[in-house]
Amino acid sequence: MAEGEFSLIDQYFARPAKSTPKDSVVLGIGDDAAVLQIPQDHQLVQTMDTLVAGRHFPDATTAEDIAYKSLAVNVSDLAAMAATPWSFLLSLTLPELDHDFLRRFSAGLFSAAEQFSIQLVGGDTCKGPLSISIQANGLVKAGEYVSRQGARVGDRIMVSGRLGAAALGLSAILGDGEVDDAAEYLTALNRPIPRLDLIPLLRKYASAAIDISDGLCSDLGHILEQSGVGAVIHQQALPVPEWIRQYDQYQYALAGGDDYQIVFTVPEHNLVSFQQEVTASGLDIAEIGLITESDYWLQSENGKIDLTQYQGFNHFGQ
Amino acid sequence: MAEGEFSLIDQYFARPAKSTPKDSVVLGIGDDAAVLQIPQDHQLVQTMDTLVAGRHFPDATTAEDIAYKSLAVNVSDLAAMAATPWSFLLSLTLPELDHDFLRRFSAGLFSAAEQFSIQLVGGDTCKGPLSISIQANGLVKAGEYVSRQGARVGDRIMVSGRLGAAALGLSAILGDGEVDDAAEYLTALNRPIPRLDLIPLLRKYASAAIDISDGLCSDLGHILEQSGVGAVIHQQALPVPEWIRQYDQYQYALAGGDDYQIVFTVPEHNLVSFQQEVTASGLDIAEIGLITESDYWLQSENGKIDLTQYQGFNHFGQ
Repeated sequence: MAEGEFSLIDQYFARPAKSTPKDSVVLGIGDDAAVLQIPQDHQLVQTMDTLVAGRHFPDATTAEDIAYKSLAVNVSDLAAMAATPWSFLLSLTLPELDHDFLRRFSAGLFSAAEQFSIQLVGGDTCKGPLSISIQANGLVKAGEYVSRQGARVGDRIMVSGRLGAAALGLSAILGDGEVDDAAEYLTALNRPIPRLDLIPLLRKYASAAIDISDGLCSDLGHILEQSGVGAVIHQQALPVPEWIRQYDQYQYALAGGDDYQIVFTVPEHNLVSFQQEVTASGLDIAEIGLITESDYWLQSENGKIDLTQYQGFNHFGQ
Repeated sequence: MAEGEFSLIDQYFARPAKSTPKDSVVLGIGDDAAVLQIPQDHQLVQTMDTLVAGRHFPDATTAEDIAYKSLAVNVSDLAAMAATPWSFLLSLTLPELDHDFLRRFSAGLFSAAEQFSIQLVGGDTCKGPLSISIQANGLVKAGEYVSRQGARVGDRIMVSGRLGAAALGLSAILGDGEVDDAAEYLTALNRPIPRLDLIPLLRKYASAAIDISDGLCSDLGHILEQSGVGAVIHQQALPVPEWIRQYDQYQYALAGGDDYQIVFTVPEHNLVSFQQEVTASGLDIAEIGLITESDYWLQSENGKIDLTQYQGFNHFGQ
């Protein structure tokens, strides 16, 4: 932890350690480093994402929403690994010492942390262009994590929630959309809900999983690449806002980012019990396609479209 | 891990996992998160520091030096906790897709990682003003870490290496210094060596420790605050470059940052065996003062100076 920022971290981000199972935090904020005791028979799952102003969130985004989203996108990575959120470190870079921003940011952060049952254990603040790096720790029982590598030919492709809502929200902000219900889509953009509710299901049934941060085509593409398989997606099966279906604007769902839903694969032999459990739980999961030997197709009413043409959001615009 | 940058991380930062004790890395770069197996009976020590261009390093710093220093300052935090470096995550924000920078940055990073015996296991890259966030994991046997909280009245204050060299290097770059041997001081500034060699000694003898990133007075001040004690430092005992002694420019050693030496306390009853071990090992450690009940003084040839007037480097200039 950088020392100059000690008092800021102390002032805005030090909270008493919770007397929950998380008192596996031996030493929290305020030293050179945090000390953590990993519960026995568990593995540590670590992810780290940086959000940059004007890039990952529009400049007008509130401090509360920035904090919420910075944590949510990291927790979403944990959910996609089927890892239970545990603890996180924050590195906050601010253009100037803005106590109002810090107050609102920390309120948003702790509210999100409580919602996701994850605990801040360390970090630093420094001066510079606004950006937020969070490194989140999750836990799984040894071997229970779900990676991108396990998809096999014949597996069914499942996706949670709705796709394209966050992209419609961004479109509304940028003024190039014609959607109604912009408020709903803005909420999808600014307040994505990591799918922690899927973790038990993923551990039990998923052969591979990834969260959708850059768009379905691009993110499912990573599963295909790392599992060495192909896929066909059925456009009519995609769970999308009615506006997308009505105006045939599926690109928002296929290439739009920021939904933070989870796309995962389920082996055929598990399909019946999986579907029974989904029905019983009432979870919002749709079957959208099939893992094949090779190639990557979208099957629409107008025929087959080669999905390799879709490029997910690339932070260098290439 | 943000997906859009997958190929960059893969292209520049994915290396085969080492078949060393570190194959406790179950899943490395290229998934939503890394999966790590903590060795039995060990605790995890986590630190995270962000370096911002023009703030933590002058704009002219080479990509290799930026990478080296970004990792070194984090590893220094681990050393100060008496934790053995284990693994780290990188979040690299770049103004543009600069392959030359990426090549040199990754070369510098992996060279430093090998030097510090620490392994990259995940991270992301994104577009924005140049900054580097690193979250480093270290390991200690349960309870063997050294915090800032254990200093007691009567403990002796020890410091490693030389103080003020990095500050003289920065002064040379900024053109407001009159030092000779600028090259040597620039090396101290750009290539600080985390004091991993002190870890066995710290575990055995130190009651409290901190690395010096913001300056001796400020960083020792954190030990005093968190241990609830005071201190007196003897200026003549400070290990400094000859130029500082000759021209009585001790402010570089007292308030200059970036030395990444370690200041620590040793209980009196352990002093004899500590000194014997230091002598036998040839380690560069100097005794510079004493922990007292309260107050914080510098004893110089000209009398006592109240050290609370010294403020360490504060990233918001306050």
